[in-house]
Amino acid sequence: MYRSNTCGELRITDISKEVTLAGWVQTVRKFGAITFVDLRDRYGITQLLFGEELNKQLEENPLGREFVLQATGVVNERSNKNPNISTGDIEINVQSFSILNRSAVPPFTIQDDTDGGDDLRMKYRFLDLRRNAVKKNLELRYAVNRAARNYLHKKGFMDIETPFLIKSTPEGARDFVVPSRMNPGQFYALPQSPQTFKQLLMVSGYDRYYQVVKCFRDEDLRADRQPEFTQIDCEMAFVEQEDILNMFEGMVKSIFKDVKGIDYTEKVHRMTWEDAMWNFGNDKPDIRFDMSLLNLKKPASVYVSKGDRSSLINGTGFKVFDDAETVLAIAVPGCSEYSRKQTDELTEWVKRPQIGMKGLVFIKCNTDGTYKSSVDKFYSEEKLKAIAEAANAKAGDLVLILAGAEERTRKAISELRLEMAERLGLRKKEEFRLLWVLDFPLFEYDEEGNRWVARHHPFTSPKPEQISTMINNNPVIENAAEYLKHPYANIKANAYDMVLNGNEIGGGSIRIYQRELQEKMFAALGMDKEEQQHKFGFLLGAFEYGAPPHGGIAFGFDRLCAILGGSESIRDFIAFPKNNAGRDVMLDAPATIDDKQFDELQIKLDLK
Amino acid sequence: MYRSNTCGELRITDISKEVTLAGWVQTVRKFGAITFVDLRDRYGITQLLFGEELNKQLEENPLGREFVLQATGVVNERSNKNPNISTGDIEINVQSFSILNRSAVPPFTIQDDTDGGDDLRMKYRFLDLRRNAVKKNLELRYAVNRAARNYLHKKGFMDIETPFLIKSTPEGARDFVVPSRMNPGQFYALPQSPQTFKQLLMVSGYDRYYQVVKCFRDEDLRADRQPEFTQIDCEMAFVEQEDILNMFEGMVKSIFKDVKGIDYTEKVHRMTWEDAMWNFGNDKPDIRFDMSLLNLKKPASVYVSKGDRSSLINGTGFKVFDDAETVLAIAVPGCSEYSRKQTDELTEWVKRPQIGMKGLVFIKCNTDGTYKSSVDKFYSEEKLKAIAEAANAKAGDLVLILAGAEERTRKAISELRLEMAERLGLRKKEEFRLLWVLDFPLFEYDEEGNRWVARHHPFTSPKPEQISTMINNNPVIENAAEYLKHPYANIKANAYDMVLNGNEIGGGSIRIYQRELQEKMFAALGMDKEEQQHKFGFLLGAFEYGAPPHGGIAFGFDRLCAILGGSESIRDFIAFPKNNAGRDVMLDAPATIDDKQFDELQIKLDLK
Repeated sequence: MYRSNTCGELRITDISKEVTLAGWVQTVRKFGAITFVDLRDRYGITQLLFGEELNKQLEENPLGREFVLQATGVVNERSNKNPNISTGDIEINVQSFSILNRSAVPPFTIQDDTDGGDDLRMKYRFLDLRRNAVKKNLELRYAVNRAARNYLHKKGFMDIETPFLIKSTPEGARDFVVPSRMNPGQFYALPQSPQTFKQLLMVSGYDRYYQVVKCFRDEDLRADRQPEFTQIDCEMAFVEQEDILNMFEGMVKSIFKDVKGIDYTEKVHRMTWEDAMWNFGNDKPDIRFDMSLLNLKKPASVYVSKGDRSSLINGTGFKVFDDAETVLAIAVPGCSEYSRKQTDELTEWVKRPQIGMKGLVFIKCNTDGTYKSSVDKFYSEEKLKAIAEAANAKAGDLVLILAGAEERTRKAISELRLEMAERLGLRKKEEFRLLWVLDFPLFEYDEEGNRWVARHHPFTSPKPEQISTMINNNPVIENAAEYLKHPYANIKANAYDMVLNGNEIGGGSIRIYQRELQEKMFAALGMDKEEQQHKFGFLLGAFEYGAPPHGGIAFGFDRLCAILGGSESIRDFIAFPKNNAGRDVMLDAPATIDDKQFDELQIKLDLK
Repeated sequence: MYRSNTCGELRITDISKEVTLAGWVQTVRKFGAITFVDLRDRYGITQLLFGEELNKQLEENPLGREFVLQATGVVNERSNKNPNISTGDIEINVQSFSILNRSAVPPFTIQDDTDGGDDLRMKYRFLDLRRNAVKKNLELRYAVNRAARNYLHKKGFMDIETPFLIKSTPEGARDFVVPSRMNPGQFYALPQSPQTFKQLLMVSGYDRYYQVVKCFRDEDLRADRQPEFTQIDCEMAFVEQEDILNMFEGMVKSIFKDVKGIDYTEKVHRMTWEDAMWNFGNDKPDIRFDMSLLNLKKPASVYVSKGDRSSLINGTGFKVFDDAETVLAIAVPGCSEYSRKQTDELTEWVKRPQIGMKGLVFIKCNTDGTYKSSVDKFYSEEKLKAIAEAANAKAGDLVLILAGAEERTRKAISELRLEMAERLGLRKKEEFRLLWVLDFPLFEYDEEGNRWVARHHPFTSPKPEQISTMINNNPVIENAAEYLKHPYANIKANAYDMVLNGNEIGGGSIRIYQRELQEKMFAALGMDKEEQQHKFGFLLGAFEYGAPPHGGIAFGFDRLCAILGGSESIRDFIAFPKNNAGRDVMLDAPATIDDKQFDELQIKLDLK
């Protein structure tokens, strides 16, 4: 061992001990005949004192930043104590030292506020990983991993490894494929998730399974997506939705406790998908704050069970509202005194291409009880008051109203809500609010193919009482314009998402376990018998031999860690991430391969 | 929840409780008006009793093997107790039941002594996994996983995930490659191990790293090799070989304790590679028993530090020995009374093509003190006695002697030693003996290329005292015939293998951490500067910025589990293994992919 102690552990109680430390030179400070060196390792920083007698040696072997140094000496009490670090009471009076390795000058500083840009830090990721900010993230990631495993172990779950070289069955996302040298012309696929395997394990009787496992999706990368990512993947047999919800809110609470010291004792709030869409404009609402939507106008075809408040805006001749498919409002607390400049700036904000609205209507609910709006020409103060009250606005609030096409307006108000909360400091990093979103639609409509696609995945079960609707109706959509009237449009899934602070951190469902229903589902997605058999014959076969009722969930491990770490970027929580072009710039991968490899794999390039 | 209890937990103390169980029908036995059903789940088997009043229902809904059944009833004391199962004191007097799913008749019985052949069981792996024999293996695997993690966590190791989509740098084994759609013409590779990443993590200061991680090698599969396999992968910084040996024999002992309840208190035995080869004929000797080799004759060029006992066999005119490069013997205890038939059978055994010897010489050390051999014509009883004594044979033992070319003879005697031990019952499944094999040669000679290859891998450090030999000599081999005289032939690696009962379960090394030495190593392996930079530029770069001394080890997790489970087949310990052609016969993978996939990846087939 090159050291007797780490750079983070010596205290005042260790005084007079002879110790050997090894680590990296953080700083070198000369004061006349003596030199101070801050030595850093994973555990902390310890000050080394090189006295006069060692100075000659130091002059012959000058230390630089990031040199690897081993030093032996005696622990002394410091005269100038540093209360900011745990070893700040002591220093090592060095008696001998050895330079274990030299370092070139790093391309950026190894500090929290580094001067290195993103690209440079990714290229030299091995240096970036030395920074305390990154180290803290990886430590948190390990703590989450460990907390999840410990909870699941206690609950009788078994970690069972599923294969990585499987069969390509693209449904939705693209597979990464791997040419097989031993089976020329054939390919493995990397798993997008262990979905079918965990279901087979349920059929096999392993009634509580988990895995912390890499998954792969060959998608065009949006910001903060990675082609390989990690899931906490779980499945249970002989359970209903309620059992899964309880089990896994328990897991997340246990992670909060173990990793953040937070006692999350309250029951996790639950919301139907329809309520989430209706009240927040999206299916992963941030409920750390309210500002729920006022649905002033909705198209007749969507959220059929909900009635809008169009009477509040109709009949005044305001064409913007009259012509809009959808009109939505939120009440922003305490912003009634926004200046013209501020409301103009907000208007520009919603007109940005990412949001895409044509304008913004506002109502100021003045503290003196009067109302002032950007549409005073069309709406009397009484009408403004009625709208504001319907939006739950109080005196001093600012009501913001967007109008336009249904989906775009809903997304826009949803973004605006988050933006205003951000500006008001309502999205606190250290406040955590969980939410279950339930009762998703089982199907989504695919316009291009005039057919159904599975909203979650093709293994998700409908609500038990809707199984017969599914079995007894033909999935074919005769009239594309009226697809919402097809019985399948109203089938709700036995599916659930867990949302944390406005991010989906996990999702799952109760699965289909009856062959007939699974075949109906595949048929609904446009798969004929032959394709079903080719792609999922093993699963349909398994359902013939006593498949139990089962369900599960998968958590996005990278995202969960990021949110717990107070960040929105998963890249900061991955040791060796890829950039947005799917490249590892440190390795310079992907890269060309040798002719011999093409030869052996019996493939060649076919570049367009 | 479909059950209140599992099928393994009810006891006599639960009598009179109303319970609901769910599981699979193992057996149905009718006795007149009553029916007994054994219901099975992951936790055990519980007997269900269906009384007269339920018989009608049962007749309408007959139960079959592997049906999924939910039954509610009252726990009763059994009249005929079954001491063989933990629930054998009780049965459930069923009040109501529900068939949750039916099952076709399974293609083989779900029992320890199944009637299913290997191929059938692989095709229906989801049924095979129901068998207790397989379940026990996966449970053991999970227990080993957990024990290893717990030990490493306690020792301050961090689980850090390394990427799966990396760069192809084939050295020795072939990479699986993955075409990149976003970077046409370029490929990722799947990692053969996280070797370079864990070294980078050491450079980054994460001084104790571990991972239980999938690795991939595209090799022609020998029996019991898998294209994807799992390693317990570990690395430490600021350590010397001794630190690693202590840390990881600690880990294996901790696994013994946690998983098998075995206190392995003695220090793990250590042996140099040369001693292992000399005394046992291979580098992973099974030391549960002795029977070490007598080196009667060796070629002058190998194991130069060892002197053979050729004086014992020379000068008698026995051409078989005189013409042989190598003559090796073992003394088999208690077999002096082998009949002619038995020695003939042994002779046939060594002549099989897998062993490949031309014949077998034996000396019977009779209990009356006389000696009898198959070469009495050439060797006097006195000479036979001298040989037998040199082989440590006692009265009653049988000395077996093989002669031939060096490598083949060494392998043959090594196999013969294991075979005789097997026959004598000396390879006990429940006896575990660990061994460290040390001081491997750093290089092996590659005849075809007349160059060096790395015996372990190109990142393994030579012994500290031999670094200068490596730096100061030209690796080029001028005279192929005399390669053993090249200074590189004698360089020993700072490498170590852990051997358990004759199987290598782990191997590792102290790594090179100096750029100059690493470049010299790459050069010795025939890589020019350009190739070094293309393949390993990131690592050489990292070594410029303060790389600490470090080393590590990787355990073959599948094999470790198999040996602990008393099996030599890793396939039995993998949930979804591939066959010897690299195929998953259940999934029918690998398989063809769609034209669209070829199109997007911009590759095409080039079948020979």
